[in-house]
Amino acid sequence: MPIPPPLDPPARLLCGPGPSDVEPSVLAAMRRPMLGHLDGDFHAILDEVVAMLRAVWRMPAGDVLALPATGTTAMEAGFANLLEPGETVIVGVAGFFGARLADMAERQGARVVRVRAPLGETVPNAALLDALDAHPEAHLVAVVHAETSTGTEHPLRELGEALAGYDALLMADCVTSLGGIPLDAEAWSVDYAYSCTQKCLGAPPGMAPVAISPYAWEKIARRRTPVPFSLDLRALRAYWVDRPVTYHHTAPILAVYALHEALRCVLEEGLEPRWARHAAAAATLRAALDERGLELLAAPGRELAPLTAVRVPAGVDGNDVRSRLLAGHGIEIGGGLGPDAPPIWRIGLMGRNATGAIAGRVVTALDAVLETSGAVALA
Amino acid sequence: MPIPPPLDPPARLLCGPGPSDVEPSVLAAMRRPMLGHLDGDFHAILDEVVAMLRAVWRMPAGDVLALPATGTTAMEAGFANLLEPGETVIVGVAGFFGARLADMAERQGARVVRVRAPLGETVPNAALLDALDAHPEAHLVAVVHAETSTGTEHPLRELGEALAGYDALLMADCVTSLGGIPLDAEAWSVDYAYSCTQKCLGAPPGMAPVAISPYAWEKIARRRTPVPFSLDLRALRAYWVDRPVTYHHTAPILAVYALHEALRCVLEEGLEPRWARHAAAAATLRAALDERGLELLAAPGRELAPLTAVRVPAGVDGNDVRSRLLAGHGIEIGGGLGPDAPPIWRIGLMGRNATGAIAGRVVTALDAVLETSGAVALA
Repeated sequence: MPIPPPLDPPARLLCGPGPSDVEPSVLAAMRRPMLGHLDGDFHAILDEVVAMLRAVWRMPAGDVLALPATGTTAMEAGFANLLEPGETVIVGVAGFFGARLADMAERQGARVVRVRAPLGETVPNAALLDALDAHPEAHLVAVVHAETSTGTEHPLRELGEALAGYDALLMADCVTSLGGIPLDAEAWSVDYAYSCTQKCLGAPPGMAPVAISPYAWEKIARRRTPVPFSLDLRALRAYWVDRPVTYHHTAPILAVYALHEALRCVLEEGLEPRWARHAAAAATLRAALDERGLELLAAPGRELAPLTAVRVPAGVDGNDVRSRLLAGHGIEIGGGLGPDAPPIWRIGLMGRNATGAIAGRVVTALDAVLETSGAVALA
Repeated sequence: MPIPPPLDPPARLLCGPGPSDVEPSVLAAMRRPMLGHLDGDFHAILDEVVAMLRAVWRMPAGDVLALPATGTTAMEAGFANLLEPGETVIVGVAGFFGARLADMAERQGARVVRVRAPLGETVPNAALLDALDAHPEAHLVAVVHAETSTGTEHPLRELGEALAGYDALLMADCVTSLGGIPLDAEAWSVDYAYSCTQKCLGAPPGMAPVAISPYAWEKIARRRTPVPFSLDLRALRAYWVDRPVTYHHTAPILAVYALHEALRCVLEEGLEPRWARHAAAAATLRAALDERGLELLAAPGRELAPLTAVRVPAGVDGNDVRSRLLAGHGIEIGGGLGPDAPPIWRIGLMGRNATGAIAGRVVTALDAVLETSGAVALA
């Protein structure tokens, strides 16, 4: 076969739903000498990653670690460990990732009770509690904290508080929230939370940080059916936390280096300042969109700071606009996700891109594309 | 919390069971601009990776792709797709990874028939065929091509040929064989093979190349029970191969760049020359060990070129020797894997480290450590 030439990808500004641009110091960390996964010096690095993840998740009493996989796998690991076949789970569905949660739980043989809300809304917590009242056998409620497909934020703190009177665990998809918006896993009574490295944390894609509460471990300890080995949180904890180690898998060394440096950056900035920076960047973007008469998909009060979903105006070809932004301006934004998505653009301002200046670059480029595309002038 | 300082890991020569040292051009590829996982320019890169993987696996008619995970996950994906609960699988067990195969299949509800051989031997193909005769309901045979825990090579070609008269699929763990020793997946009638990036391919750990035959797809098409979403080979093929794409997961972009460059290096060298280089390096190492009276764990004729398991001589503390090699010479070699392992050192000469010069460096350092450790002089 003809051997392809070395890679020469074009430069992009990554303002879609993720991956987002990586901090230069994170890329530099990936150039450090590679250790083996059973090297004592590497174990010391894992210990530091755990200590920092604990601070970023705000999970002092439970456990934290990172799966050597994507957020999709961490989503599945939650159900694989917290559900057994025939058990019931309540799932909030108001977008692509809520629907995926429900699908995954069903694949594992669970009985799934879907509680739905329209795209752009979030599932009312009262409706989730009603479902729990109607299905007292359910011991797990799963929601998406930050629904990347619609740009909405679920009021997770309030859900955790409301579940205090129930004997049910809470699982939360924090893929687009960790490091970008307020999240306090233990104080909010979240029992299993998962995220990824490539959104608000500012590392490349490839690992999935998770947080596991003591209540989740109790449920796992009562299991009667086995968990797939690669998704087995107890086996993963044996490698990450309960050293002397039993070998589980070969850790993705350079991805762990990247996560280490990304977490350092998050903690040096401080969680609250970082959340405030994401909020301010999103406010700048929303104000500029509003000036141009562009509407958000998210209902008022439900807007997700790191990811803004904008309705494509009537008469405009949204995919064509995205292609022109990419080809002419080197800027990636997202489109709708899945067959049921309305015509939207999804603009991510995550990690190092969560600034007013980047928001301005995206809007200026969007103006230019809309002008030259012959669409109705929007400004 | 106190924030740890930036990483500053020591330099190592990685001559254990993997990861092995990474080609400099592979590290350079990871510094190229990061694309999004749904970017057309990234899809073109995936197409090139598939074309190169097809050549490296030698799987012209089936499919090839790489899981965004470790070899452990790819092992599990094989059973998750090829077995349904209650089905029977014949597993060859002659080391840690054979035992893990059997454990994983059992976790998925399969009936597992273990065919065993002592450590250092390989499971006789005749014994596997006998098991298949005794269990005609079994439709899958799983073996480890390169057993990293013992440094042995299973005669996989002969097994594939012998299975021609049976209605059973063949699954092979090629974690330490792909790119290092002869392997011709399609000609040898392998139906599902999996590997990893961090051994003979010379990339960092983090992805798991797999090859799937048309017969494996036929079996998958007949499934009545669902596959966990993150392990679902059909869903993964939809992203990697059957574009226009349905989103499955966020690809680990920089790890894909690394794999792309590593495969380029393999094909530029040529598979046969690369296999010959691994064989020559192993021969140099074995000759030097033999001069020193050190014995291999592998039975004669079963030695695995990329990984040599050496028996620790009586009176020598094998772990102490490994620690001194690491601390005093910056050289990592492995010890025994798992509680049942005999006292061994595992020396890997994989990827760019598969040279006579590196073999010499390891042996010279081993000489120095054994002299200063007060052990009986071995030379």
